[in-house]
Amino acid sequence: MRPIAQTLLYDDAMRLVMDAGHPIDRAERIALTDADGRVVAADVTATVDVPPFDRAAMDGYAVVAADTFGASTQSPKTVVCVDRVFTGQMPARGIGAGECIEIATGAPMPSGADAVVMVEETDRAGDQVRVMTPVYPQQHVGRRAADIAIGQAVVKAGHVLNPSRIGAIAATGSLDINVYARPSVAILSTGNEIAEPGQPLAPGQIYDINRFTLETIVRRHGGAGVALPITADSVEELSAALDAALVHDIIVFSGGSSVGERDLILDVLHRRGTVHFHGIALKPGKPTVFGTIEGKPIFGMPGYPTSCLSNAYMLLVPFLRKVARLPSWRPLTVEAPLTRRVVSTTGRHQFYTVRLVDGNAEPAFKASGDITSMANADGYIEIPAQTDVVEAGTIVIVKLF
Amino acid sequence: MRPIAQTLLYDDAMRLVMDAGHPIDRAERIALTDADGRVVAADVTATVDVPPFDRAAMDGYAVVAADTFGASTQSPKTVVCVDRVFTGQMPARGIGAGECIEIATGAPMPSGADAVVMVEETDRAGDQVRVMTPVYPQQHVGRRAADIAIGQAVVKAGHVLNPSRIGAIAATGSLDINVYARPSVAILSTGNEIAEPGQPLAPGQIYDINRFTLETIVRRHGGAGVALPITADSVEELSAALDAALVHDIIVFSGGSSVGERDLILDVLHRRGTVHFHGIALKPGKPTVFGTIEGKPIFGMPGYPTSCLSNAYMLLVPFLRKVARLPSWRPLTVEAPLTRRVVSTTGRHQFYTVRLVDGNAEPAFKASGDITSMANADGYIEIPAQTDVVEAGTIVIVKLF
Repeated sequence: MRPIAQTLLYDDAMRLVMDAGHPIDRAERIALTDADGRVVAADVTATVDVPPFDRAAMDGYAVVAADTFGASTQSPKTVVCVDRVFTGQMPARGIGAGECIEIATGAPMPSGADAVVMVEETDRAGDQVRVMTPVYPQQHVGRRAADIAIGQAVVKAGHVLNPSRIGAIAATGSLDINVYARPSVAILSTGNEIAEPGQPLAPGQIYDINRFTLETIVRRHGGAGVALPITADSVEELSAALDAALVHDIIVFSGGSSVGERDLILDVLHRRGTVHFHGIALKPGKPTVFGTIEGKPIFGMPGYPTSCLSNAYMLLVPFLRKVARLPSWRPLTVEAPLTRRVVSTTGRHQFYTVRLVDGNAEPAFKASGDITSMANADGYIEIPAQTDVVEAGTIVIVKLF
Repeated sequence: MRPIAQTLLYDDAMRLVMDAGHPIDRAERIALTDADGRVVAADVTATVDVPPFDRAAMDGYAVVAADTFGASTQSPKTVVCVDRVFTGQMPARGIGAGECIEIATGAPMPSGADAVVMVEETDRAGDQVRVMTPVYPQQHVGRRAADIAIGQAVVKAGHVLNPSRIGAIAATGSLDINVYARPSVAILSTGNEIAEPGQPLAPGQIYDINRFTLETIVRRHGGAGVALPITADSVEELSAALDAALVHDIIVFSGGSSVGERDLILDVLHRRGTVHFHGIALKPGKPTVFGTIEGKPIFGMPGYPTSCLSNAYMLLVPFLRKVARLPSWRPLTVEAPLTRRVVSTTGRHQFYTVRLVDGNAEPAFKASGDITSMANADGYIEIPAQTDVVEAGTIVIVKLF
């Protein structure tokens, strides 16, 4: 057995991890309706004006603004309605002084008209429209290209898409968009004891958990998780699994990185690539390996479900978001007093799960082998390596899952 | 034309909207790998213990704890290693006093052993293992069912799934899960002027935006948006579109709810169902209709893209999340000083978009017809109806898109 001789401080480990991550260059064209949360790969430049014509911004009457000057409720100005124009139509005619055209919001302005009087400010009898309030030129008119002009960048490379940005792209007539590919993340659960859910367990076996937690968190943070088959504990099987995994952008093993004689991932990494570190001053999650093979980043996560997933939060998420070109993760947080004292004398940076109960943060951590340490928690607090005790009543910042 | 006679206060409108929303009862069974963010429809009860056996929590030696009492570096206790057991194996034999079995993390405990000595605390020569530190009974042992016991609820109805909860379900051997269905939301853009992106525009036409913004926001908040074909401005077409839409849980029209003579959605609602309100003291988004037909909630959003989408944030999202059984939306927020004075004298609750520039909140609002009012913003502030002015320098809470 090979004990971990020396652990790296979390911040130092994080630096090594981030240095190994390079923003993805691969792009793909996808449907706008699937583009929420994706990162724009190239500026989208408008090829049409939005709107493509001057249009009414209110329901009312298209007028010559000067005809309304001096109008008031006491002494309205009267103009003659000569036509009407609905949205989706082109006006059949223009207007001159003393005339107006009834117009619906969004309809193209008739020539000669330079403002719209709101219907609420008018009173109509036959074709006589009495205007109670003056309008200035261009009032209640949406100018051609006021929203987006031809040649203007609607979204820029690096923008993360959201509802309104997707709307802006649709406004220019596009149905698809070039975005950066989601980094593909090969997920490999290793261990002779690991069995696929959905089948009965043999003696000594347990169900795979890490594949499911990792796939879910990877998807949340801009990656495309690809679960590869469970790999048994042999150098040959691991090495073959690695060959299949190397087509992906990021490779995440779980299991096999502890200090047992079967530290096979470490062996494979040493033989085929570079080990950047083995062992972090992090709790849980100490027996973590990180390296590169053929330029591909390889994470060797602990097999324990809570250690594996907390390491995903602490190491993989920042890395993955960098590669995916997403901004740093900003979790939702809650500040709450801790219900009881937490002692953390290990000298390791601690990921500590809590439950929110009546506005208090109640420790929820059981053991790093227990997925319920996290599944029954609402979030986690971080306790720096140099902090030994967090007293009951301390206001802690809970990062919500 | 029918002006909006009276607008409802935003809070009052919101109350009417929320009262019309009923948490969905329909459930469906889906793959665990697609279940992130979904709402559990029935308690999941474990049918296996996790772990299914007592197991080593550390790499080391399974021992009789009493054999180690009094051990120290100066005077180690020596036990004889009689076998080894790897993970995924059952122990071939048990141990008695004075014996130990080399054991890997996760491997089943041999009978007779009641603790594990960590490898770091030992020194081995041949089959002689010198133990430097005593262990107490059950130390470094993961007890059978310590994580999850048969009969225990792994997740409960109403829980929102996340990575660790999905992991906990996998731990019990399930590959799928009963969740509440996503409310299906029919999205109908109406208006003679509205054209589908991807095709050239005819004169007087503009591209549909609302279908894309609504579909995206609906998906973000637990719904399944279903875009129906663009509907022209006639009672017959709208009524036919409504018939097709009524198979869905929620119906959202955009366009056609302003005060023009073509207030057809209002007509259809009056004729076939109940109008709960028409007109809200909200800016943008005043000409909004809400009603029910055959028990189905119908939103008539303004056609203007920013009004439509801001109304989706202000009215549809809280409603949809209630129906989807999701907790209230907690947007990410940033507090920042406003770069310039914003005047809001309309007596309406205002949704006002801002850009974050160097830590300041810079007004980004152009016009409610302009999607770039939102697409070029980072989020929005809310200005209550009774607030007339927000001075430059005021710290505002920006809700991020």
